[in-house]
Amino acid sequence: MSIDQKLESWVASANDPTTDFPIQNLPVGVFHVRGSDRLGVGVAIGDKILSLHDASELGILQGWRWRDVPTLAPLMMEGNATAASLRQQIAGILERSNTSAAAHASRILVAQSDVIMRMPTDIRGYTDFYASVNHAFNVGSMLRPENPLLPNYKYIPVGYHGRTSSIVVSGTDIRRPWGQQKGEPEPSVGPSQWVDYEVEVGALVGRDNALGEPVRIEQAEEHIWGFCLLNDWSARDVQAWEGQPLGPFLSKNFSSSISPWVVTMDALEPFRVPMAKRPVGDPSPLPYLTSDRNASRGGIDFTLEVWIRSAAMRARNVEAMRLSRASFSEMYWTFAQMLTHHTMNGCNLQTGDLLGSGTVSGKRREEMGCLLERTRRGAEPFELPGGEKRGFLEDGDEVILRGYAERDGMRRIGLGECRGVLTPAI
Amino acid sequence: MSIDQKLESWVASANDPTTDFPIQNLPVGVFHVRGSDRLGVGVAIGDKILSLHDASELGILQGWRWRDVPTLAPLMMEGNATAASLRQQIAGILERSNTSAAAHASRILVAQSDVIMRMPTDIRGYTDFYASVNHAFNVGSMLRPENPLLPNYKYIPVGYHGRTSSIVVSGTDIRRPWGQQKGEPEPSVGPSQWVDYEVEVGALVGRDNALGEPVRIEQAEEHIWGFCLLNDWSARDVQAWEGQPLGPFLSKNFSSSISPWVVTMDALEPFRVPMAKRPVGDPSPLPYLTSDRNASRGGIDFTLEVWIRSAAMRARNVEAMRLSRASFSEMYWTFAQMLTHHTMNGCNLQTGDLLGSGTVSGKRREEMGCLLERTRRGAEPFELPGGEKRGFLEDGDEVILRGYAERDGMRRIGLGECRGVLTPAI
Repeated sequence: MSIDQKLESWVASANDPTTDFPIQNLPVGVFHVRGSDRLGVGVAIGDKILSLHDASELGILQGWRWRDVPTLAPLMMEGNATAASLRQQIAGILERSNTSAAAHASRILVAQSDVIMRMPTDIRGYTDFYASVNHAFNVGSMLRPENPLLPNYKYIPVGYHGRTSSIVVSGTDIRRPWGQQKGEPEPSVGPSQWVDYEVEVGALVGRDNALGEPVRIEQAEEHIWGFCLLNDWSARDVQAWEGQPLGPFLSKNFSSSISPWVVTMDALEPFRVPMAKRPVGDPSPLPYLTSDRNASRGGIDFTLEVWIRSAAMRARNVEAMRLSRASFSEMYWTFAQMLTHHTMNGCNLQTGDLLGSGTVSGKRREEMGCLLERTRRGAEPFELPGGEKRGFLEDGDEVILRGYAERDGMRRIGLGECRGVLTPAI
Repeated sequence: MSIDQKLESWVASANDPTTDFPIQNLPVGVFHVRGSDRLGVGVAIGDKILSLHDASELGILQGWRWRDVPTLAPLMMEGNATAASLRQQIAGILERSNTSAAAHASRILVAQSDVIMRMPTDIRGYTDFYASVNHAFNVGSMLRPENPLLPNYKYIPVGYHGRTSSIVVSGTDIRRPWGQQKGEPEPSVGPSQWVDYEVEVGALVGRDNALGEPVRIEQAEEHIWGFCLLNDWSARDVQAWEGQPLGPFLSKNFSSSISPWVVTMDALEPFRVPMAKRPVGDPSPLPYLTSDRNASRGGIDFTLEVWIRSAAMRARNVEAMRLSRASFSEMYWTFAQMLTHHTMNGCNLQTGDLLGSGTVSGKRREEMGCLLERTRRGAEPFELPGGEKRGFLEDGDEVILRGYAERDGMRRIGLGECRGVLTPAI
């Protein structure tokens, strides 16, 4: 159930029209107050965090059973109805007219500037999809100009397993990886020279399914708890050499970053859109990937942006530069389709599993969600303020992903930011 | 440190020359006594299990700190030296001359026939390699007759991420998966018709490494705690359609089975062999994958067998038929090389991670470790006792993997068995 667009909060910053976190959003995350042992589950509101533990201790929040557990997992496990009812209660606590809750502000609120955000949950499985047809086409056209999309693309939400141990939260530095690169007469071994980002949306699984029990598309969204941003850092030179026949491996598993706030399904209700219209001549999704709801409301109208700020820009106090902006509503496959496909063979998803959408790209250069596409494998570099050139990332570059849903007359529902600085190789 | 080949045990069945579990082996696992709440870590000895909890309670085993925890994880985390010293102590408990321990037999031993074995540890990451050049060649020659091995094969221990949630312990039924199969004008959707097994050795990671910190080949074996059998069940029709460009996904993640007993590094000391000799003209491994120890003792002289028993054979009390036997000593890459390659980019391995060797095959038909190779994609079926024909697996077929190291004058070190029955699709 979405929250009234007119509702305002006694947390003043939440009423700023530019905030990612108005009272209509209320994403959940795990915070740690810097220099203290205060650690817990919180909800972002403007530039503050509502501490659910403290609100519960003071009797302001009812039924919060997870005390100091620094993970969303037990909450996510209960599914979306529990999250939705918690959300309604929290909106009531934070709405402008709740002066008694506001009187406790100093005890239940924490400034976002005072915390380090932690991983929201223990991620046990990570599957990365390839659901942007523009991305698949742009990449495919470099590898196979005559045949950019493989014949399975329009039937299968293509995906593969990623590595969970190296998923880190926004703000964690990313070390440039070593790898093997193609070479003559022998491959070379050294730091990757083609380090790239990928802007993706991540979906976190709430309710699990048993091994052997597929999830039908009609129920698929009941298993998706919420969304975050995902940067699937990639070493393109390593990927080009290792990637066949079994897919990407070391080119991806050195690190992936996620944003710390999980925006729940409910908060996005006003931004659900029809599945993207397929080009004339493309097949309809197969029946097991088809439902009325998915066709009419399976998409989400997120806008995704990538920004970059080099070490030299930071030194000169130059702001980050935007590299791309693309719409998630153009994805060829919806998350419901990805989840249903993933389980069609009985594969069991677990609470906290991360499904990545794959790089989100449009057709035009300023919509391309990774440098491989944007600079055509480094061949067409771009310029940063101050004149630095980039084909791929250089040491010290910070990549900042931003994501949000917005529309006239609606409060902006932000995913927040996912940041990472590339540091030199070992 | 290996245990004296002449040592015998007061557990009579351990002295039988055909047992997988003489006192020289002592593999570790988690058992549950059927119909009771007795659950714990045990060591296989002949046809019995030594309960470490009970031996500790009686003061027979010293320093066992993990009481009833039904996982090997805390023990594995401590690394191989702790496991080796525990092993020496247990050999002392079980050796023939220890009459005081033998006097407690009824309290510290459990019959293997009375237990259900559990997963030995929580597997957090699963990486499957492709280290048998014979397997890669046999499969590649069906797909690309003119070019069976891709150019990276001789430089990279090729691997990819698998799914952990669907890994099950030996004895668990495997449900035939649904999937998409190639078809005209549209792909079809239905139960896979080409369900296959793959015989592999699994290595379980003990000591972890930190994100960003590669493990050099000289230290790689310090991170490998022990070995089991692995059946990486595969749906070949699904794999053929989905597998490009990002690798196998639903064709593999419906289930993988592992054997329950983990044979430690130490027990295999007498069976370490040089890395397989590469054919003339093949490149040497790159320097980061090279060490003197790996060259002289990086291999393990396991023999791996696959047996099959159909429902009709069970009904007629016909014993299982052997389908293949191959030597693990012929692998193109060692586990030390796989682990070092996996971490060269800083990827962090965690205690309990499973590394699969990939299908273990020889060159000859009776050495091929999956049906895809053995029947040439079903085109050359074989016959079972009673006349049934098989191109791929049929419902009710039980696949039994067996693995062991043996040599004249040495006690056999067995991995035990990994069993699974294919049940009908949902």
